[in-house]
Amino acid sequence: MNVGTMTIKSRRSVRKYRPTKIPPYVIQDVLDCGRLAPTANNLQPWLFGAVTDRDLLRKIADLTGSAPFIADAAVCIAVFGRFGETFYLEDCAAATMNMIIAFQNHGLATCWVAGDKKPYAEPVRELLGVPPEYSLVSLIPAGAPAEVGNPPKKTLDEVTFQDRYGGKDR
Amino acid sequence: MNVGTMTIKSRRSVRKYRPTKIPPYVIQDVLDCGRLAPTANNLQPWLFGAVTDRDLLRKIADLTGSAPFIADAAVCIAVFGRFGETFYLEDCAAATMNMIIAFQNHGLATCWVAGDKKPYAEPVRELLGVPPEYSLVSLIPAGAPAEVGNPPKKTLDEVTFQDRYGGKDR
Repeated sequence: MNVGTMTIKSRRSVRKYRPTKIPPYVIQDVLDCGRLAPTANNLQPWLFGAVTDRDLLRKIADLTGSAPFIADAAVCIAVFGRFGETFYLEDCAAATMNMIIAFQNHGLATCWVAGDKKPYAEPVRELLGVPPEYSLVSLIPAGAPAEVGNPPKKTLDEVTFQDRYGGKDR
Repeated sequence: MNVGTMTIKSRRSVRKYRPTKIPPYVIQDVLDCGRLAPTANNLQPWLFGAVTDRDLLRKIADLTGSAPFIADAAVCIAVFGRFGETFYLEDCAAATMNMIIAFQNHGLATCWVAGDKKPYAEPVRELLGVPPEYSLVSLIPAGAPAEVGNPPKKTLDEVTFQDRYGGKDR
């Protein structure tokens, strides 16, 4: 058994959090995992905001409409990418996933909330005072879990192949 | 010290691999981590190919031009997304990052090679016989590391802010 991959595999999106606070050193460690994600040409074209102010969390939740649970998160990481860089979306998604697994390693639950292509991307950027050359890619509300997520997942056979698609079975 | 986040933070891109083989159960565990990454609306709009055939690895390396080291990888995971789904790029990037960290947890090195927006995306898809509704998002060559990667990274202060950008210092 590999403890590291067990942690990755046990992650599920959680949309209900307990009011437990998260210590600053944990948030810092999570941001560090985002910072060290790989990027195309090592550009690191990003900016991560750690929002813990309750009033701001409520305002972000209201702006999204679809993610009211952000209002109850202990922290919400807002991931911004330098719009126009060819791979800013992949780079910021890599950082988002790194931070989600980092939270998981600290026993905390998250839910990846989309930002890019969403009508609230610009309002959230303006709310947080982020310069217009950046654009919102994702929001990561986090907290101690108050529910268990378990959506159905496709099997390995359904989503993988060996060497050539439709070739010999794995 | 958190062993899980230490693993995430110690990952660096590696472009030189030893000829060591990777056991099938490790590849399976890595694919499982990709399969269980979060996706928008739980769509899981993807297909992962695990390429270990040396001839195919060489052909993929040749097609990319920029990633000759794929020819020497023990395995290369090709990540395809259902083109046209709104968030296929973010979803496939999430799966890519999950699998990269999974390899890292097994002591294996990787390098995220871009696929989307690259001229070799279609030729690689055709080489692997993948249906045209899917499009290549990334390639993950993996193997026992034969070099140490250590590109310069921006500091936390350069890429993060607390609550509002330009507000009080973290």
